[in-house]
Formats: sequence, structure tokens, C-alpha cells
Amino acid sequence: MTDAFYMQMALDLAKQAQGQTNPNPMVGAVLVKDGRIVGFGAHLRAGEPHAEVHAFRMAGEHAEGATLYVTLEPCSHHGKTPPCADLVISSKVKRVVVAMTDPNPLVAGNGINRIREHGIEVEVGLLEAEAIALNERFLHNMRTKRPFVVVKTAMTLDGKIAAHTGDSRWITGPDARAAVHRLRNEVDGILVGIGTVLADDPELTARLPEGGGKHPVRILLDTCLRIDESAKVLDTSVAPTWIVTAQGADGEKAARLRERGVQILEFAQRDLAAVLDKLYSLGITHLLVEGGATVNGAFLQAGLIDKVMAFVAPKLIGGEGAPTPYGGSGFDTMSQAVQLRDISVTTYGDDICITGYPVYGGEQ
Amino acid sequence: MTDAFYMQMALDLAKQAQGQTNPNPMVGAVLVKDGRIVGFGAHLRAGEPHAEVHAFRMAGEHAEGATLYVTLEPCSHHGKTPPCADLVISSKVKRVVVAMTDPNPLVAGNGINRIREHGIEVEVGLLEAEAIALNERFLHNMRTKRPFVVVKTAMTLDGKIAAHTGDSRWITGPDARAAVHRLRNEVDGILVGIGTVLADDPELTARLPEGGGKHPVRILLDTCLRIDESAKVLDTSVAPTWIVTAQGADGEKAARLRERGVQILEFAQRDLAAVLDKLYSLGITHLLVEGGATVNGAFLQAGLIDKVMAFVAPKLIGGEGAPTPYGGSGFDTMSQAVQLRDISVTTYGDDICITGYPVYGGEQ
Repeated sequence: MTDAFYMQMALDLAKQAQGQTNPNPMVGAVLVKDGRIVGFGAHLRAGEPHAEVHAFRMAGEHAEGATLYVTLEPCSHHGKTPPCADLVISSKVKRVVVAMTDPNPLVAGNGINRIREHGIEVEVGLLEAEAIALNERFLHNMRTKRPFVVVKTAMTLDGKIAAHTGDSRWITGPDARAAVHRLRNEVDGILVGIGTVLADDPELTARLPEGGGKHPVRILLDTCLRIDESAKVLDTSVAPTWIVTAQGADGEKAARLRERGVQILEFAQRDLAAVLDKLYSLGITHLLVEGGATVNGAFLQAGLIDKVMAFVAPKLIGGEGAPTPYGGSGFDTMSQAVQLRDISVTTYGDDICITGYPVYGGEQ
Repeated sequence: MTDAFYMQMALDLAKQAQGQTNPNPMVGAVLVKDGRIVGFGAHLRAGEPHAEVHAFRMAGEHAEGATLYVTLEPCSHHGKTPPCADLVISSKVKRVVVAMTDPNPLVAGNGINRIREHGIEVEVGLLEAEAIALNERFLHNMRTKRPFVVVKTAMTLDGKIAAHTGDSRWITGPDARAAVHRLRNEVDGILVGIGTVLADDPELTARLPEGGGKHPVRILLDTCLRIDESAKVLDTSVAPTWIVTAQGADGEKAARLRERGVQILEFAQRDLAAVLDKLYSLGITHLLVEGGATVNGAFLQAGLIDKVMAFVAPKLIGGEGAPTPYGGSGFDTMSQAVQLRDISVTTYGDDICITGYPVYGGEQ
């Protein structure tokens, strides 16, 4: 088998933990000796052992003289666990193949250097693009110190997110809706505007088809604290609920909500970037925006969308006044539209999901 | 080789003449004797020989004892050419394999019956679904006596056909635009509303990337005859131009337009079905609607769309008031939306084209 085969296996192992390693990256490791797999592992949860540790435990004495394939540079710092670089060295592997260096400034090449200093051969860059794609959320966090923002929308083939009457159940079919719940299960936070809460009274939880689901923090943009106190999303026994509001908006209502366990985040002015900074400081690394037209339009206008997932249902509803996925003031000319790169198209039953990454001016 | 192999070849041959056989169907034929192809042909243009004639001419005396594969039942009536069934019989083929019977009431099984009466074995139904799909336009014409109506739209990934300012150049990239010109090259007529003409002053011609193109008849819905007399589309030396208008709308302007070769079609009331009846009687078998939101919405509301081609460009423009592909009053609830069947997804450069067939209440 080739190096690429084992690295792909390591990537596949890493991906199994999608959504459960935050704020850490997903990492997979495979140990191979004399053409035989002697150990493998993946990082499963922050605070628990790194991928390499699991692999070395499985390999035991067979690690000596083996090749380690790992999707991310072994760490060199004492975090919640001891440095993996030291474990690699003490295990006496012969060779290490790394998909990508760790962008975490605490590592950033130090792990690789330390291993090389001990005479172990290290190759870097195999399946690097795949490793980068796997950890798009983590890399964004490291680069920007903000949550990775995914805007998910669902529209008809004529661009509507609801009928002119506001009715929107359902646009997509069960397979697409299940995919959204899986996505909610993977993120730390889900954000909507107060309009969506008032119109649909959603729970904003992750309900997987097979049962269960890890609920994200429900984050509501509600500048004037207009929320109905009987809204389902205010039941904080189900999942945490945070409300982003204007400084001093309805103090009595805010006090009542706080008593019910709702966290009120007050901002002096409308500034989505500041909101994202705050959310990241509170541990939100991966944010799913399921806003209506206004919220999505605001994120678009502010250039704060990192990934777009647009579900398109093959149906036509018509209606001049029916709402579309992104509202707001919008750009003036088609040439100013925000182009997406790395488009992919997936089908869920009859529905189509188009995914891409916004390219903002000057970025590329 | 199997029967299916030769029938697929016949279908492929038929398809080469896409858009140039109207009002006739596309038909392909292959003659095989002792495992060797001895002749093949396709119908290329109405009034010219049918596919079988070309195939028999190519085969000459080798046709005797051969198997004929033909995508549509050989005709039994004297049209612009003599009946192919008679040619099949006189050529002394041994066996005939037909993909589908001819829905034309003048044939409708008579061709097959006549051949069978002469002791020739006939099998029907091989690759029938493919043959039906190939001739969707012709079959629709036979069933409804109306043009096959394709509505083509192009929108951003947030459902807009223009910026809030009206700017719409360009939504899709060059590959998608080339595909639209190819489509124009295949239809008999292209229909837009006066709004599109006033806003964009389009030529509505077929300009193929390799040069040339067969221009469709340009059909404008202009109830009040608001057209600007300097509009490019009024140059009837390029292609015919027909204007659908209200009875008695601006008689002097109508007279001037008639003098310039424009055909004015007057209707007593707004009735798209009546317009389609009229267009079919004037030889329009395949109609491409490239309307704005109003025209597309009217076709949707009237249940007169036979096929939808929706180009989606991976870009976001935002704008609450920006127009969407289908306007009009629209349906009241999502469950009333017109579902599409047989969805296919094709990419043109970065753009995605979603194609499907509307399912109207009671149809299926």
C-alpha cells in the first residue's frame, strides 16, 4: 500500500469525529510496520487523548521502527495532554508522514522540528488539501479568532424561502431536513433572527433521524428584545439560549429571561463582527446561521459568511412579494455580487444542495 | 452486439438533428445483417426523407433479410414522403425493432400492423423511455396541439434575476450563456414580456459559440403595445418578430410595425392558453420562454409550463426588493407549489442548471 492509502485512512478516521472535537481539530493517525497496520486512532473530544496517543497505545511495542501517518502535525506543547511529539520520539518510530502543519501558533512547526531533531525522518504535505478541507472550521478559528460561519438556506427553484403568505412548511424533503439536523449536531451554535422565532417558534435543536443529537447553543438576534416569553427556544432545560440585544433593551424582560437561564448579550451598537468576537470568546467555534432574509442579508453585506449551504427544492411557487434567502439592501450591480468558490453539488432525495465559499474582495 | 446496442445507436443518430426536424420528430434507423451494420440514417428536416429511407438507400440490396432498428414506428400515411412501412415491406427485411409507436393519429400502430401483415416480425418497446424523452416536444404537440413550453431562468444562489437596481449582466458565465444560445437554436419561438424588451433591448437571436445559429421567431407579450420602435428586436431582417397584443391597442403604431414586417397577433382577452393555440397554428411547436418574473409567473399560474430549465449561478447579491425568476401572485402555501419531476442537474462552468417537468394537479 502507498503512503497516500494510509493517509487517506487517517483522514477517514479523523472525520468520524466530525463535530465532537470542538474547539480542537479533527485528527487521525495510523501506524504501519512492515506493510501491516499496527495501530490507529482519532482525536474524539477536547481534553481526551490525541489521535497519536490512541494509535501508540494500540501498537504497543510494535510502534518501534514503524511509520506514523498523521493528518496534523503532532503537538509540541503541554495542553490538556502532554506533547505528542515527545511520544512519537520515545516510541522510536522510524518515519513520520504529516498531512499539514498545525496552524496553532503554539505548535506551528515546532512539533515537526522537535521530532526531526531526534533523527526521525518527517515528510510534510501528503494529502494536504484534504486535511485543510477537513479542518476548515479549526483553521478559520486559528486565523481569525472568530467562529466559522455557515449560512444554510432552503429555497424553491424560483428563489423563495416562503410563499407570499409566509408559509414555508416544507420547502425541502425529509432527506434534506435530516442533513440540516446532522449539521446542527456538528456545530456549537445556531443563530437566527427574532423574525424567524416570532414567525415559526422553532426549537432549534439537533434531532438526528437515528435518534438523539447534540444540541447547539441557540443564539437569537433580538435587538429590541421582542421575543415572546412563551417561545419554545426559551426552554433552557433543552439547550442553552443566548439572546443578542441592544444595551438596556427592556431591563425587566431581560431580568426575567436571565432568571430562566437565558444568557443576555448586550451590545452598544449593531456590529455583527463584534457579536462574532464575543461568541468566539464564549466558546462558539462553529456557527450555523439559519436566519431569515434579513439576518442572512446582514451577514452577506458585512462579509462575514465563511461557507454557504444552499438547499434548492425542485418546485415553483411564484409570488412577486415572496421572501428570498438573502434580503437587506443588497449590492447594486451583478458584478458586485459575492462569488463563491469550490462549489459542490449534492442531492438529498429530490432536493439539491449547493455548497461554496464566498470570495471577498482582496481575499484571492 | 445486442438489440439495445443498435437501438441506442439509432437514438444517438436521431439526436444529432435536435431542433432541425420541427414540426417532425427526431428519428434514427439502423439496418443490421449477420452482425454487420449495412445502413443507417436519421430524419434531418421536415419534407426531407425519413430515417428509414436514408438507411435503406445506404444498405441497397443488403437490406434483404436484415433487422431494422428504428426509434419510432415507420409511418403508414402519405405525408410529404411516401409511407415508410411500404418501403420496409418491399425491402424484404426479416425483422423490425421499434422503440415506440407513433402518437400521430395518422399512424398510431398502423405502420406496425401493416408490416406484420406481410409476415415480418416486429418488436415494440426497446429503449422506449429513451425514445419518449428524445421526442418530448413532438409527443407534447401530438397530445395537446400546443407548443412544448420550456421556461428558462437564470438566478443567483439567493434567488435573484437582477440586483435591486435592475442590473442583470451577467448572472451566469459564458458556458451557461452558450447553452442558452444552443437552446434558442433548437426551438421555433422565443417568448419574452415587454418588460424585458424595455429593460434590456435584447436581440433574442441564437448565436452559437462556433458561429451561426438558427434564429427562433421572436414573440413579445405586449398587451398595450408599449414597445419602443427603435427596439433591436423589431429588425425583422434578422428574424421574424410577432407581437401579442390586446385587440385594438394603438392601431397606428400597429400599422407602422406591420409595415416593418412585424406580425401583430391581437387577442380579445388575456389568455395564455389561447396564445399558445394560436402560436401552434402558426407553426410554433417548441417555445422557449425567457420572460421576466411577470411572464414566467403568469405561465406558472396558468399551468402551461412543460419543462423548466433553471440556471443557478454560485453568487449572492442580496436585496429585499430584487426580482426573482417567477413573480405574479404566486401560490398561498408551500404545499401548493408546483413540484417538478425527473430532475436533472448539469454544470456549465461554475453554473448549475436544474431541469425538471412540472407536475400539475391530477396529471399523475
